Amino acid sequence: MAKLLLLLALAGCQSAPLQAQKDPLPSWNDGPTKQTILGFVRRVTTEGSADFVPIADRIATFDNDGTLWAEKPLPNEVYFVFARVHEMAARDPSLREKQPFKAVLENDVAYFQQHGAKAIVELLVATHGNLTQEQFAAEVRRFLDTQHHPKLNRPFTATAYAPMLELLAYLRANGFQTWLCSGGTIDFMRVFSYQTYGIRPDQVIGTELKRESKVIDGRRVIWRLPAVESINDKETKPVGIDLHIGKRPVIAGGNVLSEGDIAMMEYSKGRQGPSLQLLIDHDDAEREFAYQEKDNVSLNAARQQGFTVVSVKRDWRNVFGAQPGAKQTSSVEPAPMDRRSMAVPQFLQVAR
Amino acid sequence: MAKLLLLLALAGCQSAPLQAQKDPLPSWNDGPTKQTILGFVRRVTTEGSADFVPIADRIATFDNDGTLWAEKPLPNEVYFVFARVHEMAARDPSLREKQPFKAVLENDVAYFQQHGAKAIVELLVATHGNLTQEQFAAEVRRFLDTQHHPKLNRPFTATAYAPMLELLAYLRANGFQTWLCSGGTIDFMRVFSYQTYGIRPDQVIGTELKRESKVIDGRRVIWRLPAVESINDKETKPVGIDLHIGKRPVIAGGNVLSEGDIAMMEYSKGRQGPSLQLLIDHDDAEREFAYQEKDNVSLNAARQQGFTVVSVKRDWRNVFGAQPGAKQTSSVEPAPMDRRSMAVPQFLQVAR
Repeated sequence: MAKLLLLLALAGCQSAPLQAQKDPLPSWNDGPTKQTILGFVRRVTTEGSADFVPIADRIATFDNDGTLWAEKPLPNEVYFVFARVHEMAARDPSLREKQPFKAVLENDVAYFQQHGAKAIVELLVATHGNLTQEQFAAEVRRFLDTQHHPKLNRPFTATAYAPMLELLAYLRANGFQTWLCSGGTIDFMRVFSYQTYGIRPDQVIGTELKRESKVIDGRRVIWRLPAVESINDKETKPVGIDLHIGKRPVIAGGNVLSEGDIAMMEYSKGRQGPSLQLLIDHDDAEREFAYQEKDNVSLNAARQQGFTVVSVKRDWRNVFGAQPGAKQTSSVEPAPMDRRSMAVPQFLQVAR
Repeated sequence: MAKLLLLLALAGCQSAPLQAQKDPLPSWNDGPTKQTILGFVRRVTTEGSADFVPIADRIATFDNDGTLWAEKPLPNEVYFVFARVHEMAARDPSLREKQPFKAVLENDVAYFQQHGAKAIVELLVATHGNLTQEQFAAEVRRFLDTQHHPKLNRPFTATAYAPMLELLAYLRANGFQTWLCSGGTIDFMRVFSYQTYGIRPDQVIGTELKRESKVIDGRRVIWRLPAVESINDKETKPVGIDLHIGKRPVIAGGNVLSEGDIAMMEYSKGRQGPSLQLLIDHDDAEREFAYQEKDNVSLNAARQQGFTVVSVKRDWRNVFGAQPGAKQTSSVEPAPMDRRSMAVPQFLQVAR
């Protein structure tokens, strides 16, 4: 009896051994991909194994849009930009005649096709800047609490992929730090990263606005300036990882769309010792969205460098979790989404 | 018996309750300062207390130079800069005739008094740049393994303050994340922060060089460019905290010297809920170094804003830990330190 109590009590201290008992990845179909993941984690966490990685070095970094949650027809943060523009125009009608706001309000895709990244950055800084961090976080929270994904018809945070949520929990149960490393803005992601992914705000890496600290009404605050400090994408993702973590990831996860995660995976691959790279291929139009990449650059990199390709169609038993009940919608109307919206490559590019 | 085993096993899961039994801060003299610290931690960690702070929000940030380890006659990282200059000149004698290297090699303080910050930044980027992160870390490690502090005659990492090491351990035992937030460079501190302070590399915030990721010999690396990306000091410390942590510190610790930590303390003070700011006053010439600040700006801020002032003389029973045996010295000769070196305010300013 004493022994039993002792074992129970000890088991309570360390979830990993318990986790190992049952299938930690029920939303993943059995097959080579799932076996690669389970086998890798077993090898790097087994003391005495040649591939053993100490807990201090168990770093896993994941892209967000298209890797942890959906990114079609447009990345979720773009809908936040739209909602902000509609709100700002409601408060200041003069914006209705001012570009690039006018183009958003009239869903003028041609304008963005013509003015590309410049117009997008203008929108980003106008909707994300000129606020304190606290004010911005409140805006994001209100958006997430009241808006729905236009195609998947569920709260944006419910567009998270069930298999990836299981993977994140499985990695943490095995001593891994799980980090976000996305082209989305760091302060947008920090608002929901913990509740949605179990990822703490200090473990989020993303695109940044310039900020300054100043005293307003006797209180020192962080003020968001209407200017981009750095874009976290492609070759700059390893720099963001170095800035925030200071170690190479043992596991790096990204997806096929805009070559955005190749450098991060190469950075992981380049570490001394074992590493695993997961590249999600969106090939399931029925359960999610099917999309490829120009010239298959990421898939070719995976073939050449030995990244593990995850097929949504073959490897995922479920794509999304149970759909939460629809929440009340706010007065903010999201901009109408239609097929034309999908023809804005620059939008996707920059918003990643 | 079963009960006892169970209790023992459970106790093993959570060190905080055990810690609380004995004095967690033996190197602190009993008195108002120590009582303020112990009382604050008790209040914010007691469930049901009006001041209870959830573990997720238990953030403590500490300056490094003069707060966690000595900074006189010059900040420790400056001796690394000197050592690098001597090494570089040994490899490339032409540097002996080139400023600001010449001034370092000849200990020409007047030059730095004349050229100030510009010369310092030139030295910083020349000694810290044009390396991969791995190469730079190896240089720092070699410096720390072979060089000694010129006045305290011990390895630089042994200039850490015993009372602060106890405070860091005490805070972690009570669920706090302990962060470094210093004007020193992030990658210099990351090399020793874990072994010296128990602070992980991803919880270090500091001054940064520009970096890029590129492929060298088929391997993606982080390349350090010879240019400053950002200085982490004064008003920019809250920005660094926001970038890396995304939350306001519940506890912020700094010291009197150059007004470098006032903004960080104001940022902590400005949080919703309880907070504690510790300002170390170096007033003990016998056991360490005694130095004040022009116009007492930091001490005045402490009085006006209610920061807790820590007197080295009154509040610390011990300043340093037991002195480790001297390590073998390398071929690198540190630049001779003398009284004149202490007359380089710009040096201290920028190197903080």
